[in-house]
Amino acid sequence: LPGREVRIRPLAGLSEIGEGDVLGELIATAAAPATGEVVVVSQKVVSKSEGRLRDLDRVRPGPEAEDLAERTGKDPRLLELALSESRRVVKAAPGVLITETRSGWVCANAGIDGSNVEGDSTVALLPEDPDASARAIRSGIRRAGEAAPAVVVADSFGRPWRLGQADVAIGCAGIAPLDDWRGRADAHGGELSATLIATADQLAAAADLSRDKDDSLPGAVISGLDHLVTEDDGPGAAAVQRPADRDLFR
Amino acid sequence: LPGREVRIRPLAGLSEIGEGDVLGELIATAAAPATGEVVVVSQKVVSKSEGRLRDLDRVRPGPEAEDLAERTGKDPRLLELALSESRRVVKAAPGVLITETRSGWVCANAGIDGSNVEGDSTVALLPEDPDASARAIRSGIRRAGEAAPAVVVADSFGRPWRLGQADVAIGCAGIAPLDDWRGRADAHGGELSATLIATADQLAAAADLSRDKDDSLPGAVISGLDHLVTEDDGPGAAAVQRPADRDLFR
Repeated sequence: LPGREVRIRPLAGLSEIGEGDVLGELIATAAAPATGEVVVVSQKVVSKSEGRLRDLDRVRPGPEAEDLAERTGKDPRLLELALSESRRVVKAAPGVLITETRSGWVCANAGIDGSNVEGDSTVALLPEDPDASARAIRSGIRRAGEAAPAVVVADSFGRPWRLGQADVAIGCAGIAPLDDWRGRADAHGGELSATLIATADQLAAAADLSRDKDDSLPGAVISGLDHLVTEDDGPGAAAVQRPADRDLFR
Repeated sequence: LPGREVRIRPLAGLSEIGEGDVLGELIATAAAPATGEVVVVSQKVVSKSEGRLRDLDRVRPGPEAEDLAERTGKDPRLLELALSESRRVVKAAPGVLITETRSGWVCANAGIDGSNVEGDSTVALLPEDPDASARAIRSGIRRAGEAAPAVVVADSFGRPWRLGQADVAIGCAGIAPLDDWRGRADAHGGELSATLIATADQLAAAADLSRDKDDSLPGAVISGLDHLVTEDDGPGAAAVQRPADRDLFR
Protein backbone atom coordinates (compact mmCIF):
# COMPACT_ATOMS: atom_id res chain seq x y z
CA LEU A 1 0.00 0.00 0.00
CA PRO A 2 1.34 3.42 -0.95
CA GLY A 3 -0.20 5.37 1.92
CA ARG A 4 -2.79 8.04 1.34
CA GLU A 5 -3.39 11.77 1.60
CA VAL A 6 -5.52 12.68 4.60
CA ARG A 7 -7.38 15.98 4.87
CA ILE A 8 -8.87 17.57 7.96
CA ARG A 9 -11.33 20.41 7.62
CA PRO A 10 -12.88 22.18 10.60
CA LEU A 11 -16.58 21.61 11.23
CA ALA A 12 -17.84 25.13 10.52
CA GLY A 13 -21.28 26.66 10.33
CA LEU A 14 -22.84 25.36 13.54
CA SER A 15 -24.13 27.92 16.00
CA GLU A 16 -23.96 27.52 19.79
CA ILE A 17 -25.42 24.13 20.74
CA GLY A 18 -28.11 23.81 23.41
CA GLU A 19 -29.95 20.98 25.13
CA GLY A 20 -32.10 18.99 22.73
CA ASP A 21 -30.32 20.08 19.59
CA VAL A 22 -29.97 17.11 17.24
CA LEU A 23 -26.24 17.27 16.56
CA GLY A 24 -26.23 14.75 13.71
CA GLU A 25 -28.79 16.71 11.71
CA LEU A 26 -27.00 20.01 12.34
CA ILE A 27 -23.68 18.49 11.26
CA ALA A 28 -25.19 17.00 8.10
CA THR A 29 -26.63 20.39 7.15
CA ALA A 30 -23.49 22.36 7.96
CA ALA A 31 -20.80 20.04 6.61
CA ALA A 32 -22.44 17.31 4.50
CA PRO A 33 -19.87 14.66 5.45
CA ALA A 34 -19.64 11.71 3.04
CA THR A 35 -19.88 8.04 3.97
CA GLY A 36 -16.12 7.47 3.80
CA GLU A 37 -15.30 10.41 6.04
CA VAL A 38 -14.81 10.62 9.79
CA VAL A 39 -16.63 13.31 11.77
CA VAL A 40 -14.82 14.15 15.00
CA VAL A 41 -17.07 16.00 17.46
CA SER A 42 -15.84 17.67 20.61
CA GLN A 43 -17.19 16.26 23.88
CA LYS A 44 -18.26 19.73 24.97
CA VAL A 45 -20.92 20.18 22.28
CA VAL A 46 -22.15 16.63 22.77
CA SER A 47 -22.54 17.30 26.50
CA LYS A 48 -24.39 20.57 25.78
CA SER A 49 -26.81 18.86 23.40
CA GLU A 50 -27.47 16.15 26.00
CA GLY A 51 -28.23 18.58 28.81
CA ARG A 52 -25.08 17.71 30.77
CA LEU A 53 -24.36 21.26 32.00
CA ARG A 54 -24.45 21.78 35.77
CA ASP A 55 -24.47 24.94 37.90
CA LEU A 56 -21.88 24.64 40.66
CA ASP A 57 -23.92 27.08 42.79
CA ARG A 58 -26.61 24.43 43.05
CA VAL A 59 -24.31 21.60 44.14
CA ARG A 60 -24.07 20.73 47.86
CA PRO A 61 -20.79 18.94 48.59
CA GLY A 62 -20.99 15.89 50.84
CA PRO A 63 -18.35 14.78 53.37
CA GLU A 64 -16.31 12.76 50.84
CA ALA A 65 -16.08 15.79 48.54
CA GLU A 66 -15.08 18.04 51.47
CA ASP A 67 -12.38 15.56 52.41
CA LEU A 68 -11.11 15.42 48.82
CA ALA A 69 -11.13 19.23 48.71
CA GLU A 70 -8.71 19.28 51.63
CA ARG A 71 -6.43 16.78 49.92
CA THR A 72 -6.52 18.37 46.45
CA GLY A 73 -7.23 22.08 47.05
CA LYS A 74 -10.02 21.88 44.47
CA ASP A 75 -13.56 23.30 44.63
CA PRO A 76 -15.63 20.88 46.78
CA ARG A 77 -18.68 21.41 44.51
CA LEU A 78 -16.68 20.26 41.47
CA LEU A 79 -15.44 17.30 43.49
CA GLU A 80 -19.00 16.39 44.49
CA LEU A 81 -19.94 16.24 40.81
CA ALA A 82 -16.76 14.32 39.96
CA LEU A 83 -17.49 11.73 42.64
CA SER A 84 -21.06 11.30 41.47
CA GLU A 85 -19.75 10.70 37.92
CA SER A 86 -17.07 8.19 38.98
CA ARG A 87 -16.67 4.54 39.92
CA ARG A 88 -13.47 5.08 41.88
CA VAL A 89 -10.76 7.59 42.69
CA VAL A 90 -7.49 6.62 41.00
CA LYS A 91 -5.33 9.38 42.48
CA ALA A 92 -5.90 12.41 44.71
CA ALA A 93 -3.03 14.79 45.49
CA PRO A 94 -2.56 18.57 45.74
CA GLY A 95 -3.93 19.97 42.47
CA VAL A 96 -4.75 16.52 41.08
CA LEU A 97 -7.86 14.36 40.99
CA ILE A 98 -7.92 11.37 38.64
CA THR A 99 -10.91 9.07 38.64
CA GLU A 100 -12.41 6.29 36.59
CA THR A 101 -15.72 7.58 35.26
CA ARG A 102 -18.92 5.55 35.26
CA SER A 103 -18.41 5.07 31.52
CA GLY A 104 -14.93 3.63 32.21
CA TRP A 105 -12.53 6.45 31.24
CA VAL A 106 -9.61 7.32 33.49
CA CYS A 107 -9.10 11.09 33.44
CA ALA A 108 -8.76 14.27 35.50
CA ASN A 109 -11.82 15.53 37.41
CA ALA A 110 -14.07 12.88 35.84
CA GLY A 111 -13.78 14.89 32.60
CA ILE A 112 -15.70 17.82 34.10
CA ASP A 113 -14.65 21.36 33.24
CA GLY A 114 -15.93 24.85 32.71
CA SER A 115 -14.10 25.91 29.57
CA ASN A 116 -16.13 27.01 26.54
CA VAL A 117 -19.33 26.96 28.58
CA GLU A 118 -21.52 30.01 29.21
CA GLY A 119 -21.56 31.24 32.83
CA ASP A 120 -18.88 31.46 35.52
CA SER A 121 -20.31 28.71 37.69
CA THR A 122 -21.40 26.36 34.90
CA VAL A 123 -19.50 23.18 34.09
CA ALA A 124 -20.04 20.36 31.61
CA LEU A 125 -20.11 16.68 32.57
CA LEU A 126 -19.02 14.05 30.07
CA PRO A 127 -21.84 12.44 28.08
CA GLU A 128 -23.29 9.59 30.12
CA ASP A 129 -22.49 7.02 27.41
CA PRO A 130 -20.21 8.58 24.79
CA ASP A 131 -20.43 5.55 22.48
CA ALA A 132 -24.21 5.88 22.49
CA SER A 133 -23.72 9.59 21.74
CA ALA A 134 -21.53 8.73 18.74
CA ARG A 135 -24.10 6.25 17.45
CA ALA A 136 -26.90 8.80 17.85
CA ILE A 137 -24.93 11.47 16.00
CA ARG A 138 -24.16 9.01 13.22
CA SER A 139 -27.77 8.05 12.93
CA GLY A 140 -28.80 11.72 12.90
CA ILE A 141 -26.38 12.40 10.05
CA ARG A 142 -27.73 9.41 8.12
CA ARG A 143 -31.33 10.49 8.67
CA ALA A 144 -30.60 13.98 7.40
CA GLY A 145 -28.70 13.05 4.27
CA GLU A 146 -28.22 9.29 3.67
CA ALA A 147 -24.44 9.41 4.14
CA ALA A 148 -23.08 7.37 7.05
CA PRO A 149 -19.64 8.72 7.98
CA ALA A 150 -17.85 7.40 11.04
CA VAL A 151 -18.26 9.51 14.18
CA VAL A 152 -15.70 10.03 16.95
CA VAL A 153 -16.48 11.91 20.17
CA ALA A 154 -13.21 13.49 21.35
CA ASP A 155 -11.98 14.99 24.59
CA SER A 156 -8.62 16.39 25.72
CA PHE A 157 -6.97 14.14 28.33
CA GLY A 158 -3.72 14.54 30.22
CA ARG A 159 -1.31 11.62 30.20
CA PRO A 160 0.98 9.98 32.76
CA TRP A 161 4.70 10.64 32.09
CA ARG A 162 3.97 13.29 29.44
CA LEU A 163 3.00 16.94 29.97
CA GLY A 164 0.08 18.53 28.16
CA GLN A 165 -3.19 17.16 26.87
CA ALA A 166 -3.90 15.30 23.64
CA ASP A 167 -7.33 14.63 22.22
CA VAL A 168 -8.50 11.04 22.52
CA ALA A 169 -11.69 9.22 21.56
CA ILE A 170 -14.21 8.62 24.33
CA GLY A 171 -16.90 7.47 21.90
CA CYS A 172 -17.06 6.22 18.33
CA ALA A 173 -19.37 4.63 15.79
CA GLY A 174 -18.63 3.30 12.31
CA ILE A 175 -14.94 2.78 12.93
CA ALA A 176 -12.87 0.19 14.81
CA PRO A 177 -11.16 2.11 17.64
CA LEU A 178 -8.21 -0.30 17.53
CA ASP A 179 -6.62 -1.51 14.29
CA ASP A 180 -5.10 -4.91 15.01
CA TRP A 181 -1.91 -5.70 13.06
CA ARG A 182 -0.74 -8.45 15.41
CA GLY A 183 0.35 -11.49 13.41
CA ARG A 184 0.55 -9.59 10.14
CA ALA A 185 3.79 -9.00 8.24
CA ASP A 186 5.85 -5.80 8.22
CA ALA A 187 7.60 -4.39 5.11
CA HIS A 188 10.47 -6.88 5.59
CA GLY A 189 8.22 -9.93 5.98
CA GLY A 190 8.78 -10.09 9.75
CA GLU A 191 5.79 -10.72 11.98
CA LEU A 192 4.38 -7.77 13.91
CA SER A 193 3.93 -9.11 17.43
CA ALA A 194 2.41 -6.23 19.38
CA THR A 195 1.08 -3.72 16.86
CA LEU A 196 -2.40 -2.56 17.84
CA ILE A 197 -3.01 0.95 16.53
CA ALA A 198 -5.20 3.30 18.55
CA THR A 199 -6.88 4.60 15.41
CA ALA A 200 -9.77 6.47 17.02
CA ASP A 201 -7.41 8.26 19.41
CA GLN A 202 -5.16 9.27 16.51
CA LEU A 203 -8.18 10.61 14.61
CA ALA A 204 -9.17 12.67 17.65
CA ALA A 205 -5.65 14.09 17.94
CA ALA A 206 -5.50 14.88 14.22
CA ALA A 207 -8.84 16.70 14.29
CA ASP A 208 -7.64 18.97 17.08
CA LEU A 209 -4.90 20.34 14.79
CA SER A 210 -7.51 22.03 12.61
CA ARG A 211 -9.03 24.21 15.32
CA ASP A 212 -8.19 26.43 18.28
CA LYS A 213 -9.43 26.53 21.86
CA ASP A 214 -11.19 29.88 21.33
CA ASP A 215 -12.77 29.44 17.92
CA SER A 216 -16.09 27.74 18.87
CA LEU A 217 -15.49 25.06 16.25
CA PRO A 218 -17.18 21.88 17.48
CA GLY A 219 -15.01 19.41 15.61
CA ALA A 220 -13.60 18.47 12.24
CA VAL A 221 -14.22 16.21 9.25
CA ILE A 222 -11.39 13.92 8.15
CA SER A 223 -11.26 12.51 4.62
CA GLY A 224 -9.02 10.00 2.88
CA LEU A 225 -9.58 7.12 5.30
CA ASP A 226 -12.53 5.41 3.61
CA HIS A 227 -10.95 2.00 4.27
CA LEU A 228 -11.44 2.51 8.01
CA VAL A 229 -15.14 3.40 7.91
CA THR A 230 -17.46 0.46 8.56
CA GLU A 231 -21.15 -0.02 7.90
CA ASP A 232 -21.70 -1.39 11.40
CA ASP A 233 -21.30 0.98 14.30
CA GLY A 234 -18.77 -1.46 15.80
CA PRO A 235 -17.68 -1.92 19.42
CA GLY A 236 -17.28 1.75 20.29
CA ALA A 237 -14.38 3.45 22.04
CA ALA A 238 -15.06 1.49 25.24
CA ALA A 239 -13.03 -1.30 23.57
CA VAL A 240 -9.96 0.88 24.21
CA GLN A 241 -10.38 0.72 27.98
CA ARG A 242 -7.71 -1.50 29.50
CA PRO A 243 -9.22 -4.44 31.37
CA ALA A 244 -8.28 -4.38 35.06
CA ASP A 245 -5.97 -7.38 34.68
CA ARG A 246 -3.92 -5.65 31.97
CA ASP A 247 -3.75 -2.26 33.67
CA LEU A 248 -0.33 -1.54 35.11
CA PHE A 249 -1.58 0.98 37.64
CA ARG A 250 -4.71 -0.53 39.07
CA LEU B 1 -9.83 32.28 14.25
CA PRO B 2 -11.81 30.17 11.80
CA GLY B 3 -9.69 27.02 12.00
CA ARG B 4 -7.79 25.70 9.04
CA GLU B 5 -7.61 22.81 6.62
CA VAL B 6 -4.75 20.45 7.43
CA ARG B 7 -3.31 18.02 4.87
CA ILE B 8 -1.13 15.01 5.50
CA ARG B 9 0.75 13.37 2.65
CA PRO B 10 2.93 10.31 3.04
CA LEU B 11 6.67 10.80 2.67
CA ALA B 12 7.18 8.76 -0.50
CA GLY B 13 10.17 8.16 -2.73
CA LEU B 14 12.81 7.24 -0.16
CA SER B 15 14.51 3.89 -0.55
CA GLU B 16 15.63 1.71 2.39
CA ILE B 17 17.71 3.82 4.78
CA GLY B 18 21.14 2.69 5.96
CA GLU B 19 23.78 3.93 8.40
CA GLY B 20 25.29 7.22 7.33
CA ASP B 21 22.45 8.23 5.02
CA VAL B 22 21.73 11.94 5.43
CA LEU B 23 18.00 11.81 6.05
CA GLY B 24 17.38 15.53 5.74
CA GLU B 25 18.90 15.67 2.26
CA LEU B 26 17.01 12.56 1.12
CA ILE B 27 13.73 14.01 2.43
CA ALA B 28 14.33 17.36 0.73
CA THR B 29 14.94 15.60 -2.58
CA ALA B 30 12.02 13.20 -2.29
CA ALA B 31 9.33 15.50 -0.85
CA ALA B 32 10.56 19.11 -1.07
CA PRO B 33 8.75 20.18 2.12
CA ALA B 34 8.13 23.93 2.43
CA THR B 35 9.10 26.12 5.38
CA GLY B 36 5.59 26.20 6.84
CA GLU B 37 5.17 22.43 6.74
CA VAL B 38 5.91 19.80 9.36
CA VAL B 39 7.91 16.71 8.40
CA VAL B 40 7.15 13.76 10.67
CA VAL B 41 9.82 11.05 10.46
CA SER B 42 9.48 7.59 11.95
CA GLN B 43 11.97 6.71 14.68
CA LYS B 44 12.91 3.52 12.85
CA VAL B 45 14.48 5.24 9.84
CA VAL B 46 16.22 7.76 12.09
CA SER B 47 17.70 4.89 14.09
CA LYS B 48 18.81 3.13 10.91
CA SER B 49 20.52 6.25 9.58
CA GLU B 50 22.30 6.68 12.91
CA GLY B 51 23.61 3.12 13.04
CA ARG B 52 21.42 2.12 15.98
CA LEU B 53 20.69 -1.43 14.77
CA ARG B 54 21.93 -4.25 16.99
CA ASP B 55 22.22 -8.01 16.42
CA LEU B 56 20.73 -9.89 19.37
CA ASP B 57 23.03 -12.85 18.61
CA ARG B 58 25.97 -10.69 19.62
CA VAL B 59 24.50 -9.54 22.94
CA ARG B 60 25.59 -11.33 26.14
CA PRO B 61 22.96 -10.86 28.88
CA GLY B 62 24.25 -10.00 32.36
CA PRO B 63 22.72 -11.14 35.66
CA GLU B 64 20.24 -8.23 35.88
CA ALA B 65 18.92 -9.05 32.39
CA GLU B 66 18.65 -12.76 33.30
CA ASP B 67 16.72 -11.83 36.44
CA LEU B 68 14.38 -9.56 34.44
CA ALA B 69 13.91 -12.35 31.89
CA GLU B 70 12.56 -14.58 34.64
CA ARG B 71 10.17 -11.88 35.81
CA THR B 72 8.95 -10.83 32.37
CA GLY B 73 9.35 -13.90 30.16
CA LYS B 74 11.16 -11.74 27.60
CA ASP B 75 14.37 -12.48 25.65
CA PRO B 76 17.30 -11.78 28.04
CA ARG B 77 19.35 -10.35 25.15
CA LEU B 78 16.65 -7.76 24.43
CA LEU B 79 16.50 -6.99 28.15
CA GLU B 80 20.28 -6.50 28.29
CA LEU B 81 20.00 -3.90 25.52
CA ALA B 82 16.96 -2.30 27.20
CA LEU B 83 18.82 -1.99 30.50
CA SER B 84 21.87 -0.46 28.82
CA GLU B 85 19.58 2.12 27.17
CA SER B 86 17.69 2.99 30.39
CA ARG B 87 18.07 5.09 33.51
CA ARG B 88 15.63 3.01 35.55
CA VAL B 89 13.04 0.26 35.36
CA VAL B 90 9.54 1.68 35.89
CA LYS B 91 7.66 -1.62 35.82
CA ALA B 92 8.53 -5.27 35.22
CA ALA B 93 5.80 -7.92 35.14
CA PRO B 94 4.97 -10.97 33.01
CA GLY B 95 5.04 -9.75 29.40
CA VAL B 96 5.78 -6.16 30.42
CA LEU B 97 8.93 -4.08 30.76
CA ILE B 98 8.61 -0.32 31.05
CA THR B 99 11.69 1.79 31.56
CA GLU B 100 12.80 5.39 31.47
CA THR B 101 15.31 5.69 28.64
CA ARG B 102 18.57 7.61 28.95
CA SER B 103 16.94 10.33 26.82
CA GLY B 104 14.07 10.55 29.34
CA TRP B 105 11.17 8.74 27.63
CA VAL B 106 9.03 6.27 29.55
CA CYS B 107 8.07 3.40 27.24
CA ALA B 108 8.03 -0.36 26.71
CA ASN B 109 11.36 -2.17 26.23
CA ALA B 110 13.29 1.13 26.14
CA GLY B 111 11.74 1.68 22.71
CA ILE B 112 13.66 -1.27 21.23
CA ASP B 113 11.96 -3.50 18.68
CA GLY B 114 12.56 -5.64 15.63
CA SER B 115 9.70 -4.62 13.36
CA ASN B 116 10.51 -3.23 9.91
CA VAL B 117 14.16 -4.12 10.32
CA GLU B 118 16.06 -6.57 8.08
CA GLY B 119 17.08 -9.82 9.77
CA ASP B 120 15.41 -12.05 12.36
CA SER B 121 17.80 -11.23 15.18
CA THR B 122 18.21 -7.51 14.42
CA VAL B 123 16.55 -4.83 16.55
CA ALA B 124 16.62 -1.04 16.47
CA LEU B 125 17.44 1.12 19.49
CA LEU B 126 15.93 4.58 19.82
CA PRO B 127 18.14 7.42 18.57
CA GLU B 128 20.53 8.44 21.36
CA ASP B 129 19.22 12.03 21.41
CA PRO B 130 16.04 12.27 19.31
CA ASP B 131 15.88 16.08 19.61
CA ALA B 132 19.40 16.28 18.18
CA SER B 133 18.23 13.91 15.42
CA ALA B 134 15.31 16.24 14.60
CA ARG B 135 17.63 19.26 14.50
CA ALA B 136 20.07 17.42 12.23
CA ILE B 137 17.29 16.36 9.84
CA ARG B 138 15.98 19.93 9.77
CA SER B 139 19.40 21.28 9.03
CA GLY B 140 19.90 18.66 6.29
CA ILE B 141 16.62 19.70 4.67
CA ARG B 142 17.63 23.37 4.85
CA ARG B 143 21.06 22.64 3.37
CA ALA B 144 19.54 20.75 0.46
CA GLY B 145 16.84 23.23 -0.46
CA GLU B 146 16.68 26.40 1.68
CA ALA B 147 13.26 25.53 3.14
CA ALA B 148 13.18 25.03 6.91
CA PRO B 149 10.07 22.98 7.79
CA ALA B 150 9.56 21.77 11.34
CA VAL B 151 10.69 18.20 12.01
CA VAL B 152 9.12 15.70 14.41
CA VAL B 153 10.63 12.29 15.17
CA ALA B 154 7.75 9.95 16.01
CA ASP B 155 7.44 6.57 17.67
CA SER B 156 4.48 4.36 18.63
CA PHE B 157 4.05 4.16 22.41
CA GLY B 158 1.56 2.23 24.51
CA ARG B 159 -0.34 4.15 27.16
CA PRO B 160 -1.46 3.43 30.72
CA TRP B 161 -5.25 2.93 31.02
CA ARG B 162 -5.76 2.73 27.24
CA LEU B 163 -5.12 -0.23 24.94
CA GLY B 164 -3.17 0.11 21.73
CA GLN B 165 -0.35 2.38 20.67
CA ALA B 166 -0.49 5.95 19.41
CA ASP B 167 2.37 7.79 17.76
CA VAL B 168 4.01 10.45 19.92
CA ALA B 169 6.92 12.83 19.41
CA ILE B 170 10.25 11.79 20.89
CA GLY B 171 12.12 14.57 19.11
CA CYS B 172 11.29 17.83 17.39
CA ALA B 173 12.84 20.97 15.91
CA GLY B 174 11.19 24.12 14.62
CA ILE B 175 7.98 23.67 16.57
CA ALA B 176 6.98 24.13 20.20
CA PRO B 177 6.04 20.65 21.48
CA LEU B 178 3.52 22.18 23.91
CA ASP B 179 1.15 24.99 22.96
CA ASP B 180 0.37 26.89 26.15
CA TRP B 181 -3.15 28.36 26.33
CA ARG B 182 -3.17 28.77 30.11
CA GLY B 183 -4.44 32.21 31.06
CA ARG B 184 -5.92 32.87 27.62
CA ALA B 185 -9.66 33.26 26.96
CA ASP B 186 -11.99 30.63 25.54
CA ALA B 187 -14.79 31.34 23.06
CA HIS B 188 -17.04 32.56 25.91
CA GLY B 189 -14.43 34.88 27.43
CA GLY B 190 -13.72 32.49 30.31
CA GLU B 191 -10.12 31.90 31.32
CA LEU B 192 -8.52 28.60 30.29
CA SER B 193 -6.82 27.40 33.45
CA ALA B 194 -5.13 24.14 32.44
CA THR B 195 -4.99 24.04 28.64
CA LEU B 196 -1.56 22.96 27.44
CA ILE B 197 -1.82 21.24 24.07
CA ALA B 198 0.59 18.44 23.25
CA THR B 199 1.00 19.70 19.69
CA ALA B 200 4.01 17.60 18.67
CA ASP B 201 2.34 14.42 19.92
CA GLN B 202 -0.83 15.26 17.98
CA LEU B 203 1.23 15.85 14.84
CA ALA B 204 2.88 12.46 15.27
CA ALA B 205 -0.52 10.76 15.69
CA ALA B 206 -1.95 12.57 12.66
CA ALA B 207 0.99 11.57 10.45
CA ASP B 208 0.49 7.90 11.30
CA LEU B 209 -2.99 8.01 9.71
CA SER B 210 -1.45 8.49 6.26
CA ARG B 211 0.58 5.27 6.23
CA ASP B 212 0.47 1.57 7.14
CA LYS B 213 2.77 -0.66 9.13
CA ASP B 214 3.84 -2.62 6.03
CA ASP B 215 4.30 0.11 3.44
CA SER B 216 7.92 1.17 4.13
CA LEU B 217 6.84 4.82 4.24
CA PRO B 218 9.21 6.60 6.62
CA GLY B 219 6.87 9.42 7.62
CA ALA B 220 4.58 12.15 6.36
CA VAL B 221 4.48 15.84 5.55
CA ILE B 222 1.76 17.94 7.19
CA SER B 223 0.68 21.26 5.70
CA GLY B 224 -1.69 24.00 6.85
CA LEU B 225 -0.03 24.68 10.20
CA ASP B 226 2.41 27.41 9.19
CA HIS B 227 1.56 29.37 12.36
CA LEU B 228 3.15 26.62 14.47
CA VAL B 229 6.49 26.47 12.63
CA THR B 230 9.24 28.55 14.24
CA GLU B 231 12.54 29.78 12.91
CA ASP B 232 14.34 28.62 16.04
CA ASP B 233 14.62 24.90 16.63
CA GLY B 234 13.04 25.46 20.06
CA PRO B 235 13.21 23.34 23.21
CA GLY B 236 12.66 19.96 21.57
CA ALA B 237 10.31 17.20 22.62
CA ALA B 238 12.22 16.68 25.87
CA ALA B 239 10.11 19.59 27.18
CA VAL B 240 7.15 17.18 27.19
CA GLN B 241 8.79 14.91 29.78
CA ARG B 242 7.02 15.25 33.12
CA PRO B 243 9.41 16.45 35.82
CA ALA B 244 9.73 13.90 38.64
CA ASP B 245 7.81 16.13 41.06
CA ARG B 246 4.80 16.32 38.73
CA ASP B 247 4.77 12.67 37.76
CA LEU B 248 1.94 10.77 39.40
CA PHE B 249 3.58 7.36 39.10
CA ARG B 250 7.18 7.93 40.03
